[in-house]
Amino acid sequence: MPFYLEDFTAGQRFRSTTQVRVEADEIKAFAAQFDPQPFHLDDKAAQGTFFGGLAASGWHTAALTMKLLVGSPFEPAGGIIGTRAEEMSWPRAVRPGDELRVEGEILEVRPSRSRPEHGFVKAKSTTLNQRDEAVQVLVMNMLVKTRAGAGG
Amino acid sequence: MPFYLEDFTAGQRFRSTTQVRVEADEIKAFAAQFDPQPFHLDDKAAQGTFFGGLAASGWHTAALTMKLLVGSPFEPAGGIIGTRAEEMSWPRAVRPGDELRVEGEILEVRPSRSRPEHGFVKAKSTTLNQRDEAVQVLVMNMLVKTRAGAGG
Repeated sequence: MPFYLEDFTAGQRFRSTTQVRVEADEIKAFAAQFDPQPFHLDDKAAQGTFFGGLAASGWHTAALTMKLLVGSPFEPAGGIIGTRAEEMSWPRAVRPGDELRVEGEILEVRPSRSRPEHGFVKAKSTTLNQRDEAVQVLVMNMLVKTRAGAGG
Repeated sequence: MPFYLEDFTAGQRFRSTTQVRVEADEIKAFAAQFDPQPFHLDDKAAQGTFFGGLAASGWHTAALTMKLLVGSPFEPAGGIIGTRAEEMSWPRAVRPGDELRVEGEILEVRPSRSRPEHGFVKAKSTTLNQRDEAVQVLVMNMLVKTRAGAGG
């Protein structure tokens, strides 16, 4: 059951109901396709780098976070449509064998001035590993349908 | 030849030397793995959505942008290591058949107070389609090695 703009209020919290385990071969496959740097491709080559060992691309972490959100109880009407991130950081690297989950909080809800059928929800999501350490923090503005927009 | 922190100055510009063409099957494959929402998976299902037709996931656009940067003349010493994005937006959707390239500008260069072997470069990258329309704007802070850190 989707949530319309009117159903959101600042302070609401949500979390992913599944986890995703990140394997070394997935880290390397993503990197080979999108971010082919030594520290994302090869454990030995990664030793002498800033990461000191194989680490997932931050964009891989971002994509996995999206996967966790799309399957979660966070279901804005019209889909999860990010328009503008205000902040995005990777406080800690994702390593082979890490298990990720997401926790989030609604920060702000505002109607659109020009388009009554849509509004904006700003939410902060924190992606955590199995030791509850943050591996990504993202503050995103999303487009959400209003009940008026849904004809109801 | 990599660029050390000392080689960067605000105002420098760079651009990708290659382009990447985005095909419908790639949009769908990325979405199936990371962002399985109707407007990224199926042209027909996308018709009735905000996008009005198949569109790439914003995270797919981000990953392709990274791919373009890693193969470009923008070569910070130590690799392209983003630590914190201050802004990220997708002004326009990426559609099947679009050809993407990246233009960038260095906004700020600052040494690290605590670690003389590293510093930070803030850069803005704009990902453009074949009609020179921006499909992603990203302001990212990156960790870059100093010559001191390289032992030079």
